[in-house]
Amino acid sequence: MKKGLFLLFFFASLFIKAETITSPNGKLILDFKLNETGEPIYSLTLDKMQVIKTSKMGIEIKDNDSFLSGFKVASYDKNNVNENWEPVWGELKTIKNNYNELIVNLIQPDLRDRKFTIVFRLFDDGLGFRYIFPEQQDFKNFIIKSERSEFALTGDHKAFWIPGDYDTNEYSYSHTKLSEVDATFGKGFNEIGSKTIIGKNFVQSPLMMKTADNLYINIFEAALVNYPAMQLKVNQQNFILTSELVPDANGNMAYLQAPCRTPWRTIIISDKAEDILASKMILNLNEPSKIKDPSFIQPMKYVGIWWEMHIGTASWNYADMNVPELKSIDWSKVKPNGRHGATTERTKRYIDFAAAHNIQGVLVEGWNIGWEDWGSYYREEVFDFVTPYPDFNIKEVTDYAKSKGIKMIMHHETSASVSNYEIKMDAAYRLMKEYGYGAVKTGYVGYIIPRGEHHDSQWMINHYIRAAEKTAENNFMICAHEPVRPTGLHRTYPNWMACEAARGNEFNAWSKGNQPEHETILPFTRLMGGPMDYTPGIFQIKLDKYGKKEQVHTTLTKQLALYITMYSPLQMAADLPENYEAHLDAFKFIEDVPVDWDDSKIINAEPGDYITIARKEKGKDNWYLGSITDETARNFKVDLNFLDKDKSYIATIYEDAKDGDWFKNPMAYNIYEKTVKHGDILELNLVPGGGTAVSIKVK
Amino acid sequence: MKKGLFLLFFFASLFIKAETITSPNGKLILDFKLNETGEPIYSLTLDKMQVIKTSKMGIEIKDNDSFLSGFKVASYDKNNVNENWEPVWGELKTIKNNYNELIVNLIQPDLRDRKFTIVFRLFDDGLGFRYIFPEQQDFKNFIIKSERSEFALTGDHKAFWIPGDYDTNEYSYSHTKLSEVDATFGKGFNEIGSKTIIGKNFVQSPLMMKTADNLYINIFEAALVNYPAMQLKVNQQNFILTSELVPDANGNMAYLQAPCRTPWRTIIISDKAEDILASKMILNLNEPSKIKDPSFIQPMKYVGIWWEMHIGTASWNYADMNVPELKSIDWSKVKPNGRHGATTERTKRYIDFAAAHNIQGVLVEGWNIGWEDWGSYYREEVFDFVTPYPDFNIKEVTDYAKSKGIKMIMHHETSASVSNYEIKMDAAYRLMKEYGYGAVKTGYVGYIIPRGEHHDSQWMINHYIRAAEKTAENNFMICAHEPVRPTGLHRTYPNWMACEAARGNEFNAWSKGNQPEHETILPFTRLMGGPMDYTPGIFQIKLDKYGKKEQVHTTLTKQLALYITMYSPLQMAADLPENYEAHLDAFKFIEDVPVDWDDSKIINAEPGDYITIARKEKGKDNWYLGSITDETARNFKVDLNFLDKDKSYIATIYEDAKDGDWFKNPMAYNIYEKTVKHGDILELNLVPGGGTAVSIKVK
Repeated sequence: MKKGLFLLFFFASLFIKAETITSPNGKLILDFKLNETGEPIYSLTLDKMQVIKTSKMGIEIKDNDSFLSGFKVASYDKNNVNENWEPVWGELKTIKNNYNELIVNLIQPDLRDRKFTIVFRLFDDGLGFRYIFPEQQDFKNFIIKSERSEFALTGDHKAFWIPGDYDTNEYSYSHTKLSEVDATFGKGFNEIGSKTIIGKNFVQSPLMMKTADNLYINIFEAALVNYPAMQLKVNQQNFILTSELVPDANGNMAYLQAPCRTPWRTIIISDKAEDILASKMILNLNEPSKIKDPSFIQPMKYVGIWWEMHIGTASWNYADMNVPELKSIDWSKVKPNGRHGATTERTKRYIDFAAAHNIQGVLVEGWNIGWEDWGSYYREEVFDFVTPYPDFNIKEVTDYAKSKGIKMIMHHETSASVSNYEIKMDAAYRLMKEYGYGAVKTGYVGYIIPRGEHHDSQWMINHYIRAAEKTAENNFMICAHEPVRPTGLHRTYPNWMACEAARGNEFNAWSKGNQPEHETILPFTRLMGGPMDYTPGIFQIKLDKYGKKEQVHTTLTKQLALYITMYSPLQMAADLPENYEAHLDAFKFIEDVPVDWDDSKIINAEPGDYITIARKEKGKDNWYLGSITDETARNFKVDLNFLDKDKSYIATIYEDAKDGDWFKNPMAYNIYEKTVKHGDILELNLVPGGGTAVSIKVK
Repeated sequence: MKKGLFLLFFFASLFIKAETITSPNGKLILDFKLNETGEPIYSLTLDKMQVIKTSKMGIEIKDNDSFLSGFKVASYDKNNVNENWEPVWGELKTIKNNYNELIVNLIQPDLRDRKFTIVFRLFDDGLGFRYIFPEQQDFKNFIIKSERSEFALTGDHKAFWIPGDYDTNEYSYSHTKLSEVDATFGKGFNEIGSKTIIGKNFVQSPLMMKTADNLYINIFEAALVNYPAMQLKVNQQNFILTSELVPDANGNMAYLQAPCRTPWRTIIISDKAEDILASKMILNLNEPSKIKDPSFIQPMKYVGIWWEMHIGTASWNYADMNVPELKSIDWSKVKPNGRHGATTERTKRYIDFAAAHNIQGVLVEGWNIGWEDWGSYYREEVFDFVTPYPDFNIKEVTDYAKSKGIKMIMHHETSASVSNYEIKMDAAYRLMKEYGYGAVKTGYVGYIIPRGEHHDSQWMINHYIRAAEKTAENNFMICAHEPVRPTGLHRTYPNWMACEAARGNEFNAWSKGNQPEHETILPFTRLMGGPMDYTPGIFQIKLDKYGKKEQVHTTLTKQLALYITMYSPLQMAADLPENYEAHLDAFKFIEDVPVDWDDSKIINAEPGDYITIARKEKGKDNWYLGSITDETARNFKVDLNFLDKDKSYIATIYEDAKDGDWFKNPMAYNIYEKTVKHGDILELNLVPGGGTAVSIKVK
């Protein structure tokens, strides 16, 4: 920039003063201005306490001028929104969307007034901001080299983090100070096959933090569309976090065409941990549903042929052999290995169990050819998604399911050969339609094909959304395993019921497992963006029954409590029917528990320690409560003030035995009933690694 | 290698002597042996003259031991094959497949006898060799880092070359000595939008060469399946060519799973240039047809809405605007630009012309939405392949075509967004089926999505074959523009009629064009692997009629001769009906000329100078002859000894006017008839840049 121009610009910028907005309740204050070199900067305070110090914003463009500095404010626009909307399903019947908005229209005078817009939305529970690239002459197609959104923290906060990684989010959480983050060494790293760790000081979002002043801060994103996922680079000296995008094969972050916009960057803040879990800001920042007739979307519980493969009593594959070319095999002549799980008979067993116990869906994994040799990186065509193994009679199974009123859930493991899945999706969905399947579970185990793409790169983000759209067009629900973590897009695509996208219960079957604190962290991190298909409900906690040294790291009743603390409209009862039949008294809770709610109360919560939540059944007056603890025993007194004053209830309490313990005595429990009413105090006694589940039904 | 082991190995290898095979006619001799470090080496002689000096062979593997040295011969196997087969269509009714085969089974004693096989097939016209990775313990999934097939030439041969490039083959040919190759600077490089030149001394195959001893050598490949294309690295000191593969996004060459095999490397050799054009070795090295009922495959001529866009009198796009998101446009409300080519009315005009003039097909480009903004690298979903523009009534058009007995050819420009095409292929083909389309022309203009892949990388090679397979399943013929150059796979997939894959006639419309020699080189290079959709038949040579400075670099009758010299079972008559109607006497040759043949005689040929070919119509006794020259006038005396002795013929000669000249007087011609018979001498007078076409019909 020439000196004269610079001075001109400098003085001109003085005429546009900084701008401030407050949250509807007046407690949060956002300040925005341009600094002396025309860089956009913002800061955020809560009750006059600084939460985010002066932080820079902007986008670096490849092979073109960037949107980082040299800006002048063209105009500020402000809006206030206060509305209510009803989700198709969820934790609440009605969601309040109330924010003050600041739209900052910037221009770059040195670049022929090139336009750039930053939008801030300030809610009572936090801040969202995004960038907009307006339609304009001379700036149309562009490549994002980096995003430079900063979150300058006020100190060396405690953080609940997993390593920054382009391909997996299935790590155990660490909790350390930001200065102590070491993302190249941590818990359970060798248990994950396909990982691409960025470096020592990179962590994933949502990043949950707690300050020395007991402020809870959660940094994440909302509405991740046509853009890579955001991870966070941690400056371990000054505690500035910077957005770090996931690159494609060329090292580029996103290919965009103006007009367009980035996902929202979000900061959820409260001095109460419970408020973090109660926040609906991520959902509010997403677009309304695109599905005109959502009647096909029906939250449900399901069982399935799945856990038996994880514990090793059955196999996904039908035979033991190599399959260099899928098409070349005549399956009718293949010798079965005798351990194949997905047989017609076994599926009927699950259908019978589901029909008898208020379970609406049955999943079958391993029904289709290709599992013999399903590592995909060397061979793109691993699965065809349409050909059942000889011992799985798809017609017989679906006819039987229909006769019992059960919805079958199709399984599409892509082995991360996503181009292969895209190629075959039409045929796969035609088969589902033909047999009346209502939902599909997808999987993305392995390194991505197209090679060089990542689970969290722009191409894959678009793939996940395409799958949601295409299933919606076919009236299918969808649940994705090993995708990017969700960012509230289930508001826009409510048929996208759940995702795995974190370390699920399955790790308890074959790794060092999920430590007792794990499920107390997930709602503060992974679940901020949407429901998780955690697959709770393992009753046979100790796996020595199956000759395995592993075990689930909870008590049996903590598994029940997860149905409340880990919200999903698609909840698996993941154990074998045989194990449930050995504990039908405890299974009653799973049988009763709904998956769709009119109200939810976060009763108490502390990340890494405990969570207690009560939820009110959709369209009914019954409540269900779940309370879980980490490895520490805890006692809670829960005020039942959320109950209707005019009603009387019967509470059924599913609690651990007094000497219960996730390791020493995980399967001992007591179940008892008592009459309760509004204002009663319910005492919960949680053993180490334990939990309590309570149904509170109107008398 | 430990010293003792090495000695053991060394002495052991002495027990397996070198091996030699000769071609069926005894003229070509292949020698194979292992050198002192166990590297496989071969050499080739023709009539005791060395053609290929001692050359190394092998494969470098990523993250594993390579197949380059330390070999021991486990066994040699030899076979002789002498058979005839009939192609579904082509230049000959019957093709002779006659070779001696040497199978070299190698092991690597230091690597627990790891197995590797090299297969040589020696024909009278040349050599093919390939590598086989046998099924074996401990070597299953692997990545090819490089292929090290050498072709050690005997001198600084003259070469007809285009730059080594991962993404395009649309260059003009240079002819220089190998030592003078400079592939970073040459003809017409700036006329190609999407190019990825490898470096100064890399050229593409087929590489046509001529030695100082007037030996013609052509180096290429056959049966390119699940592997990247081979280009050639030229050592400009010692004249060793080495195979150079096209990498993927990760810089890897191929992801393979044993058992598997590489494409054939081919060396076609003769002291007569005509023999190079007559060789069917590439076809013989491909697998037989996989199409059980080929009755839907019907060679044909076609016209289409295409050249008018190239000369600028019409546009592919319907409107002039940006389309940031295809789905968001309501096309019924879009203001048309008034220049759109693919209208219902204009299509009917082409259908009428085709029906009146023995043309079987009509192509329409620009019929579908998306052309407004079709640069794809920033936006993946450029086309949907199913939605016609408002002024193209697909039902009306196809009904009309049916009533006139015309086959419609669908156009699918992918803009190189190939993942998008794969995703939408099923729907696109359903539409074609619904309206009875018989063929599709695909296009791949631009840089490839999946990003980081190349037109010639393994993923794309597999894509082209998938498209051939999928169209075959639907009984469609296919013709690909901007794909990898063909390698004889039309034997295996005879519905894969033709490809562009080189600099076509279109370059004459908007670049400095194709110099007069261009069409005399293509049959020695690009066409070695299969038919080219060159789109000949431009009659309005000078484009000043359309306000353009460009022109076609041939005479009008040379355009006719191309229908013979440039074989394709799918031949376009590329000019506008109006231009044909101005020269219906000359168009009679196109009207008459077949596209499928019982016999072909290469009468004379010299790369870069001239080609004369006569072909016998499939199932009939008529012959057609084409003769073309470069910028030099030439006179040929053609002995009509190929005619049936017992028959009398009427020859119709389409020749340039005496003062014809591609630049000064390209559109003046004479047409005359004469009676000819076996043994007559037909004199051809070719003007600069000219050509002569002759139909010789039985009286």
